[in-house]
Amino acid sequence: MSDAETLADRVRDGELRLYELDDHADSDTAAEARRRLLEAETDTTLETIGDYSFPAAEAADTAIENMIGAAQIPMGVAGPVAVDGGAASGEYYLPLATTEGALVASVNRGLSVIDDAGGSTARVTKNGMTRAPVFRVDGVAEAAETVEWVESHEADLREAAESTTSHGELLGVEPYVVGDSVYLRFAYDTKDAMGMNMVTIATREACDVVEAETPASLVAVSGNLCSDKKPAAINAVEGRGRSVTADVVIPGELVEDRLGTTAEGIVEANTRKNLIGSAKAGSLGFNAHAANVVAAAFLATGQDEAHVVEGSNAITTMETRERDEDGSEDLYASISLASLQVGTVGGGTKLPTQAEALDVLDLRGSGEPAGENANALAEVIAVGALAGELSLLAALSSRHLASAHEDLGR
Amino acid sequence: MSDAETLADRVRDGELRLYELDDHADSDTAAEARRRLLEAETDTTLETIGDYSFPAAEAADTAIENMIGAAQIPMGVAGPVAVDGGAASGEYYLPLATTEGALVASVNRGLSVIDDAGGSTARVTKNGMTRAPVFRVDGVAEAAETVEWVESHEADLREAAESTTSHGELLGVEPYVVGDSVYLRFAYDTKDAMGMNMVTIATREACDVVEAETPASLVAVSGNLCSDKKPAAINAVEGRGRSVTADVVIPGELVEDRLGTTAEGIVEANTRKNLIGSAKAGSLGFNAHAANVVAAAFLATGQDEAHVVEGSNAITTMETRERDEDGSEDLYASISLASLQVGTVGGGTKLPTQAEALDVLDLRGSGEPAGENANALAEVIAVGALAGELSLLAALSSRHLASAHEDLGR
Amino acid sequence: MSDAETLADRVRDGELRLYELDDHADSDTAAEARRRLLEAETDTTLETIGDYSFPAAEAADTAIENMIGAAQIPMGVAGPVAVDGGAASGEYYLPLATTEGALVASVNRGLSVIDDAGGSTARVTKNGMTRAPVFRVDGVAEAAETVEWVESHEADLREAAESTTSHGELLGVEPYVVGDSVYLRFAYDTKDAMGMNMVTIATREACDVVEAETPASLVAVSGNLCSDKKPAAINAVEGRGRSVTADVVIPGELVEDRLGTTAEGIVEANTRKNLIGSAKAGSLGFNAHAANVVAAAFLATGQDEAHVVEGSNAITTMETRERDEDGSEDLYASISLASLQVGTVGGGTKLPTQAEALDVLDLRGSGEPAGENANALAEVIAVGALAGELSLLAALSSRHLASAHEDLGR
Amino acid sequence: MSDAETLADRVRDGELRLYELDDHADSDTAAEARRRLLEAETDTTLETIGDYSFPAAEAADTAIENMIGAAQIPMGVAGPVAVDGGAASGEYYLPLATTEGALVASVNRGLSVIDDAGGSTARVTKNGMTRAPVFRVDGVAEAAETVEWVESHEADLREAAESTTSHGELLGVEPYVVGDSVYLRFAYDTKDAMGMNMVTIATREACDVVEAETPASLVAVSGNLCSDKKPAAINAVEGRGRSVTADVVIPGELVEDRLGTTAEGIVEANTRKNLIGSAKAGSLGFNAHAANVVAAAFLATGQDEAHVVEGSNAITTMETRERDEDGSEDLYASISLASLQVGTVGGGTKLPTQAEALDVLDLRGSGEPAGENANALAEVIAVGALAGELSLLAALSSRHLASAHEDLGR
Repeated sequence: MSDAETLADRVRDGELRLYELDDHADSDTAAEARRRLLEAETDTTLETIGDYSFPAAEAADTAIENMIGAAQIPMGVAGPVAVDGGAASGEYYLPLATTEGALVASVNRGLSVIDDAGGSTARVTKNGMTRAPVFRVDGVAEAAETVEWVESHEADLREAAESTTSHGELLGVEPYVVGDSVYLRFAYDTKDAMGMNMVTIATREACDVVEAETPASLVAVSGNLCSDKKPAAINAVEGRGRSVTADVVIPGELVEDRLGTTAEGIVEANTRKNLIGSAKAGSLGFNAHAANVVAAAFLATGQDEAHVVEGSNAITTMETRERDEDGSEDLYASISLASLQVGTVGGGTKLPTQAEALDVLDLRGSGEPAGENANALAEVIAVGALAGELSLLAALSSRHLASAHEDLGR
Repeated sequence: MSDAETLADRVRDGELRLYELDDHADSDTAAEARRRLLEAETDTTLETIGDYSFPAAEAADTAIENMIGAAQIPMGVAGPVAVDGGAASGEYYLPLATTEGALVASVNRGLSVIDDAGGSTARVTKNGMTRAPVFRVDGVAEAAETVEWVESHEADLREAAESTTSHGELLGVEPYVVGDSVYLRFAYDTKDAMGMNMVTIATREACDVVEAETPASLVAVSGNLCSDKKPAAINAVEGRGRSVTADVVIPGELVEDRLGTTAEGIVEANTRKNLIGSAKAGSLGFNAHAANVVAAAFLATGQDEAHVVEGSNAITTMETRERDEDGSEDLYASISLASLQVGTVGGGTKLPTQAEALDVLDLRGSGEPAGENANALAEVIAVGALAGELSLLAALSSRHLASAHEDLGR
Repeated sequence: MSDAETLADRVRDGELRLYELDDHADSDTAAEARRRLLEAETDTTLETIGDYSFPAAEAADTAIENMIGAAQIPMGVAGPVAVDGGAASGEYYLPLATTEGALVASVNRGLSVIDDAGGSTARVTKNGMTRAPVFRVDGVAEAAETVEWVESHEADLREAAESTTSHGELLGVEPYVVGDSVYLRFAYDTKDAMGMNMVTIATREACDVVEAETPASLVAVSGNLCSDKKPAAINAVEGRGRSVTADVVIPGELVEDRLGTTAEGIVEANTRKNLIGSAKAGSLGFNAHAANVVAAAFLATGQDEAHVVEGSNAITTMETRERDEDGSEDLYASISLASLQVGTVGGGTKLPTQAEALDVLDLRGSGEPAGENANALAEVIAVGALAGELSLLAALSSRHLASAHEDLGR
Repeated sequence: MSDAETLADRVRDGELRLYELDDHADSDTAAEARRRLLEAETDTTLETIGDYSFPAAEAADTAIENMIGAAQIPMGVAGPVAVDGGAASGEYYLPLATTEGALVASVNRGLSVIDDAGGSTARVTKNGMTRAPVFRVDGVAEAAETVEWVESHEADLREAAESTTSHGELLGVEPYVVGDSVYLRFAYDTKDAMGMNMVTIATREACDVVEAETPASLVAVSGNLCSDKKPAAINAVEGRGRSVTADVVIPGELVEDRLGTTAEGIVEANTRKNLIGSAKAGSLGFNAHAANVVAAAFLATGQDEAHVVEGSNAITTMETRERDEDGSEDLYASISLASLQVGTVGGGTKLPTQAEALDVLDLRGSGEPAGENANALAEVIAVGALAGELSLLAALSSRHLASAHEDLGR
């Protein structure tokens, strides 16, 4: 009887709990013991879940509890594509992990057309990871007093917040009052880290100052105006993490030859679907499927999957651009992701498969200067999302054209 | 020189493109060739990405293109918890794949408290996977004419749509008019399949009928009123996939002993953060971190990660419930996920690690009757999300209590 | 000492309260007494407020309490314009009451261009006044039970609801579950009445049936899913009152000669401002200033001013339409108001100035068949809003053109 | 034949247009001529519309075109109520113009209870009237360049903007990028003026500087991120005009004696209706009927009726507050209006009935210091809205209690 089986038996007998196994064995053995237990209790075989290739101890330490193994998500690659970014520069292959057939092919086609058009321009236009604690006050008189104190003591809050981190910088604090609740939205430059933990710790320290100096009492270090992992207008409007735009002008010939449609056709599909359709749907996402690309790139590069929620706050625009010489129309295409939260250090980026994917992008670890790697990652993901938009809108538009042709051909 | 290296060379020389490799080698070799190429071009080592345990050919066929291997995401397990659902029944272990440390522990704690309280009740209260094509008409006169035709010919549309599928059933068609665009939102019962492909194919067939019988011309088979993978009020209000609620009443003693706080404390945190904070944020997610649990359960069980976007359209409610006998207060806790899209057949559920995770839940494949497995999966995920809410709100509230106690202790 | 002064004294002495004056004098005298009191207490002269021309007794009975007189809002008229509606037909002058200088002129210019283009087409594409009570249940099991009962007993609810009204018809009931709250959204055809009171009374009766037959207890006859006088996606998506669209095709020459710009110019302004700008703003209103026209028409015709809130859930679209003959581009312009709540009987429509304004439109009182007058009013207001959009977008666009010309040195 | 009839004839004969009448007669005669024409064309009598008491010339000059007379809206008064505001101080009567029966009575009841509880506290917590032009750039590279210039040249923009106004102050400029569109949200302190015209003129001047110094070209002086008269999250989150909160603590005895319910009952109604119901509705208004009070106060005091749209972006909170002595529970009630746009100078405030209403509040004209009158007006309206919330929630709750009692057979 193996160690793992013995341990599984002890759990079954009520001597140990699942989460206590790490105290009685190394992480690999603890994971095996849990699989043995689950296999027995649920009459299953967990062979492939147990076939992982990361160091169990490290994963158990930072990424997972009650570990039983790993989920494996197929990874493909799209590109290369030239990116002229504020931070990104050169040709990039984009690793994507997904279970949605046709997604990588679609992005790949889009990137290929973008590359043939000379590549994409991209810029991070805003940067700030946020945390917004909520405080209780007695009423609006105290709320106003608290807001006034905060607005005139940002330096004190910065000192407290930055005392907890060697990298993070407090960019500003925005107060919001609702009755006897005061919300303070702290925004930080977290450099190459996605930064949620960093800003939570820093904000907690600043909250102590607020509590000491004002009548406000902390209720929760997150009061949902952050807003973390919820679809929220505050992120779509003001941004969270990186606000990033990628765009490209595609010559009319390329649109026809490679995408099988016209600039006008793509513009119409974008207007009726992504703009007017999303407007009617009461949406915060005015795009075709940005979340697909964001999710797949996040999985491949070790980002937090739940941040796909805000990552999909994106607006896609398409417009025709007239060319002087011959009157033919080029296509201007852009996507603007309001709240893309990415990092190249810490969290899931340290896991081996994810680290390798970041290596493919040459964006693992800290950038020079700090923050540039995360900026570049945001830019490349935006270009990938732009490719996905182009490819899907072209498919919709060309299919439409095709059926229009059939109609006319009869 | 291995086959893979030879192929990689041919790509480098421009003879082949990355996506053509599948035509020249088996899927494992094609993936290896891509890794070789990427390693050379980007000066990396892609060892762990190549260490996957699913059948490459099958993955390449249905889930991924330009495959290079796999991303591995640590998987843990939480539970067991008793669920009294419309479909789910009994004790469940919930597999969760994530890179966010403390998440599984948090859900595990919540499930343990729920289980001690007698388990959670859960129900799917609405079910319908949607697809909403957009049509162009000449103007509102034609739009009104089209709407009228659709409303009086739903049977014709059903016949066309259902001709393409042996499982799916058309539940209804809702028309929306904006200027010269007509959107038709088709809703289907897709049984145990998540159903996006099924409803796209079925809807396309129905669109042919609309085009033949009305003045409307199809512009795009999805006009964003579906709304797929975008945060949209239409999903939060009307649902997409499953609308599912889980709830529990937790005795006051358990709240104190196991969560270290009080029902009142949790209610206050929920009101100021999840209700008022989300209201002020312009959010469609009135919860603490439902997306975390949804994302981790989706990854573990082979769901579409980008559907986390709609999955986070959730409302968490907490209220005190007075007990007659002694005046102590119990806690009523619920979470209602408006648009949870899950399946137990097809897509990523067929991959080995994901299939094993579904086996742990005893929910792999078709249910009896069809649809019950997907219903049960939705219910169990909702219970997991409820556990995450309870655990996080309790942590916020008890920390607050703790600091309040410190203040008083001075 | 006049009666009014004596009464004012008695209020000042604490013998009477302001609202009790109606019991001690006719309505005109009571109003005068209140003015006397206010004049004394606040050191003012309320001469013009006292100069009203409606029958005080009737106003005091149905429209106002603690009456002191009237606010006078300047009224102008725009038009005439030809409307080809589902209910409206012929030439209409549109009365508008506003204090915003330039508004009537702007609408007038737009209507004139529309008229020259042959008039506007308009259609009510949906109709249903809603009321959505909220019920408390024990938990989701009871919620599901309640929903099931409601879905299979709509006839019972219809019978109860319609027993309270000779005109209203229940169109349907849509259930929504959030934890232990059940919301039932009742939709009615209220014919020519705006119908809020009618649907409240009818719904209350239906609620009694729900309470008698299910475990649900009524908490509030409005649970905010109606949603009355709040900006809410549910109205923008599903409609409330009338969903109405007006559109027109304006020949390119008219755009140039009368609006001083081009179809392309207007399309660009609409796309960047009304579509993309509103998208970025997290808006439910994708238009330029529909609320201005809706508010002014509502004031003139006796509608409920607070319903301007939902009335502004409107989407404006503009597109170029190519003409075969000469390649010049016409402009297709539309506005779709999702939730316009209007009536031609009851409420403020009975007041003399408002009744006269409805007479100008020949839409006072019940239509033939019932509902047609309110439909026509909705259509005419939509045409007015379309005119406002055209006029403002043209102004923005032509000013832009003008400054572009200046830049070019012409 | 009177002058008016002669003029009407000339319009009928096509010699003159309706709007040209002001050039051929004084404003009263022109208005009469239009009424004569309308009476003839539409077979109506417009007697009461012609019975207005403001100076026609002044109205025609600033508030209305194509004037025919006035709409009369019944005006009542509620109060008095004590307000302890940042600007308001003392007892206030609140004039309200409405056609909705029971509204004034409801507000009056609420104000009376608030007054008995010692009055309401109120504060303006944010102030800034906004205008957000949209510019076109070539792509995101130019967009980033423009944003950078704007962020480092706010002083230049301030100088230009403030050169156009003797009162307004530029508070800040916030840039937003979407593809090749750049939006700049200018916020101003407009003192006692509502300020829309002032900020439009000032912003236009600043736009000239932006166009001169950056690659950006102005497309529209309003790009809908202002956001004016559309329901938009940007206003609900960041405010527009005044963000103002009013609150009160009502002793439990008062809640029972005067409102016929309990603090718990009101809290439950507020939570299920205003918080959870609005959440489910995808709303930006988490209140019961704030728009009713805002609309009625706006009409009475000469504000822009279309601004009711943003005025209804309000959150109502209700909570129980335990009292040490006897365990009975008091009620804390608040309302926070995010974007209330009011002025006490200019626009409709100059009309006689509206000026008199402002006199009742002692808030006509400029405050000391400038801005204090508008602040005070915002505070008093907020207190009125709070009264409306209390009264309606109490009615819902007590009716519920009553029916519960009936059920119990008491």
